[in-house]
Amino acid sequence: MMAVTPDHVDLAPLAAALSEGALVLDAERMDKYRRDRALDPAAGTPLAVVRATCTADVQAAVRFAAEHGIGVVPRGAGTGLSGGATAQDGCLVVSTERMTAIEIDPTTRIAVVEPGALNVAVKQAAAQHELWYPPDPSSYEICSIGGNVATNAGGLCCVKYGVTSDYVLGLTVVLADGTAVDLGGPRLKDVAGLSLTKLFVGSEGTLGIVTRVVLRLVPALQAPSTLVATFGSLDAATAAVLDLTRRLRPSMLEFMDRTSINAVEDLTRMGLDRSAEAMLVMQSDEPGARAAEEIAEMAKICDGHGAAEVFHTDDPEEGAAFVAARRMVIPAMEPRGSLLLEDVGVPLPQLGALVRGIERIAAEHDVLIAVVAHAGDGNTHPLVVFDPADADQAARASAAYGAVMDLGIALGGTITGEHGVGRLKRPWLGDYLGPDVLALNQRVKNALDPQGILNPGAVFEHH
Amino acid sequence: MMAVTPDHVDLAPLAAALSEGALVLDAERMDKYRRDRALDPAAGTPLAVVRATCTADVQAAVRFAAEHGIGVVPRGAGTGLSGGATAQDGCLVVSTERMTAIEIDPTTRIAVVEPGALNVAVKQAAAQHELWYPPDPSSYEICSIGGNVATNAGGLCCVKYGVTSDYVLGLTVVLADGTAVDLGGPRLKDVAGLSLTKLFVGSEGTLGIVTRVVLRLVPALQAPSTLVATFGSLDAATAAVLDLTRRLRPSMLEFMDRTSINAVEDLTRMGLDRSAEAMLVMQSDEPGARAAEEIAEMAKICDGHGAAEVFHTDDPEEGAAFVAARRMVIPAMEPRGSLLLEDVGVPLPQLGALVRGIERIAAEHDVLIAVVAHAGDGNTHPLVVFDPADADQAARASAAYGAVMDLGIALGGTITGEHGVGRLKRPWLGDYLGPDVLALNQRVKNALDPQGILNPGAVFEHH
Repeated sequence: MMAVTPDHVDLAPLAAALSEGALVLDAERMDKYRRDRALDPAAGTPLAVVRATCTADVQAAVRFAAEHGIGVVPRGAGTGLSGGATAQDGCLVVSTERMTAIEIDPTTRIAVVEPGALNVAVKQAAAQHELWYPPDPSSYEICSIGGNVATNAGGLCCVKYGVTSDYVLGLTVVLADGTAVDLGGPRLKDVAGLSLTKLFVGSEGTLGIVTRVVLRLVPALQAPSTLVATFGSLDAATAAVLDLTRRLRPSMLEFMDRTSINAVEDLTRMGLDRSAEAMLVMQSDEPGARAAEEIAEMAKICDGHGAAEVFHTDDPEEGAAFVAARRMVIPAMEPRGSLLLEDVGVPLPQLGALVRGIERIAAEHDVLIAVVAHAGDGNTHPLVVFDPADADQAARASAAYGAVMDLGIALGGTITGEHGVGRLKRPWLGDYLGPDVLALNQRVKNALDPQGILNPGAVFEHH
Repeated sequence: MMAVTPDHVDLAPLAAALSEGALVLDAERMDKYRRDRALDPAAGTPLAVVRATCTADVQAAVRFAAEHGIGVVPRGAGTGLSGGATAQDGCLVVSTERMTAIEIDPTTRIAVVEPGALNVAVKQAAAQHELWYPPDPSSYEICSIGGNVATNAGGLCCVKYGVTSDYVLGLTVVLADGTAVDLGGPRLKDVAGLSLTKLFVGSEGTLGIVTRVVLRLVPALQAPSTLVATFGSLDAATAAVLDLTRRLRPSMLEFMDRTSINAVEDLTRMGLDRSAEAMLVMQSDEPGARAAEEIAEMAKICDGHGAAEVFHTDDPEEGAAFVAARRMVIPAMEPRGSLLLEDVGVPLPQLGALVRGIERIAAEHDVLIAVVAHAGDGNTHPLVVFDPADADQAARASAAYGAVMDLGIALGGTITGEHGVGRLKRPWLGDYLGPDVLALNQRVKNALDPQGILNPGAVFEHH
């Protein structure tokens, strides 16, 4: 059943059930809630936007939607890259941006966080207690924990410290009928009943809306040491990555190709080597003298693979500048045109074949593709750049975007490592999962959202 | 619907569909497949035992069971402590003990493992490539990976390294209709579709039967340093635990009470302090000189809480002897009577209240309860000891077992941290989860196993 939009819906009962000022009906104010950073051109016009202040507001919105068979599109900070928060015509958009409370319990080493809190705010609150919340999407300064949980977001630290799911101990979730449930909690081990907490992480708002998150924190670490290496060939760089991950455990292992390097250099003039085919940015945060040892081992491996330049710094600010350069690739590419941002991840031994294959796809489709990657995870972000005013180029870009996913699947990889399926990648989900696993996904979705009102069109086809 | 046992089932088609010798019908041979280590007195008599050699055997068994509406009870090594593998009358027991293949891929740093492989065998295979599989239930030398996945098993390393779920990248699962699906795989990040891999971990065979596991491995670490501290009071020991976890990140933080210490000392004569109220066994595996620093900081904290004795060793064998002593508590208690083995976990700040409360429950019910704990996780294993021939004592033991779970729930804790609900803890699951979350669990169960044939009576009531 597809969620339908009743022609005439009386919103007065909804307004009455919500906190004062939570309901937004003004078209101009609603406009900024229609899209996330994927800028999905198919975005619809919502019936209303609910700027929730508490779990009860979310419950009221979902109950109203369930009663009227209206779709609900949840959104956090709107930084999603797969169109998971694209508004649908006649839906309710439920924004959690006003729910930003953060409480730290240093004894249990947890943070209890509302979904609208930014990732950076959780990191800062933890740091006040000498604790650390590891997951660090490149967008960590502007993305929210709710969105991180919805997509099971990754980042740069994952190569050593894992992804969002590894840090979620508990959730409060509003289910499709408006019931709010607490799953898991501040217990480091809990196997009573099914692993529903983990099921909701990464479900992109299709099973429920998260209104509270219990996050595990770890003790703060010392500032990392940084190593930067440039390579004259892509193959040498990817071969170095395999050697690094086989033998060491860097806390960061990032990759930029020549297009990415040049885009960042255009913006920063920090002196990056514009002629390099690839650059690796690596860190070690091992305690004490071990960091220097690990950095030396990394440098040796890079040298062994014919690195053109290898640069090491223990200065935290200098190291941070290279990490910032890496994080800057997407914004640096944005002025060059519209972007289709890929997120293909492959088993590590296939990283070289993927990077080479993307180069071939760019040539075949005559489009520019910059490649940046969480190389240590095998998770790449090819950015397909195109001029939206050039219909032919836009079509070629779209074909290249699909071809990269097809290549990823052929190499045993996934169509999305950390951004989520959303709406942009939905057409490829069945190709990746195959019919049996897709049906299994759908069975769980139908069981938890029989009306199909939760984030309709994201991940799953309208049913 | 309750899985029913047809009076006359023709097993010839099942025998024909299975590998040669997989079907066991002999009552005497079947007897050892009726119970796990929980020794559930309610164990039934299976219709047949299938000793599967491959995924296809498991599929054949499940298809046959689905066709005839027969329950299927999966089992690994039979070391479960909650009766998750208790045979039901007229069911098929599907044993994976013969599926023991292990393949290591050192580049991707994964192990591809069949469910019957023992935890220790995976550790050994990984070690040959200087890799490590962290999860380490006390029973790691005799428990299987399939059972570890089914219960989301923990262990001693979890305080620093997490639980089984944190290491499962992919699963092959036979679903309730006999379909085999591959979930996840050798990709370090993958968010395409719902987190079904994580959902199946800890589902205790109620959603499907795992026939292949892709495990993440990490580089091997140096041998840990060990610190042992004894305390004259329970409160001092639990206060020290809180201080330790707030400020440090030990790779092990285990607790034994006086009864446990004495039981182990009876067996080993290793010179443990029989008069201590509690003993903590701690380790640091930090690299290089940092381990010695961390051990010194731990010792200082223990001293600050009035430890009677603090003993430190860098000798791996000597350290291992103390860890072995800790692991020995359950076998050391077994000669003293029948055991009801608890697994209550609480938020860390409640650890002291839980340990004190258990002491009170033992006195009130006039039974012996030994307490051993993964203290750094707040996960305790009270062992209720009783003479099964003494009906009154057995009844008091059973009441005490329930009282400990009630206390755990009252302190914000879980009824099971790592052993699973199985059949023994099922009566408490609703009290712990509450009706809404229990219903949510049931909804997922019904969606994936509409006939209710998968491990009937485990976790869920017969429905």
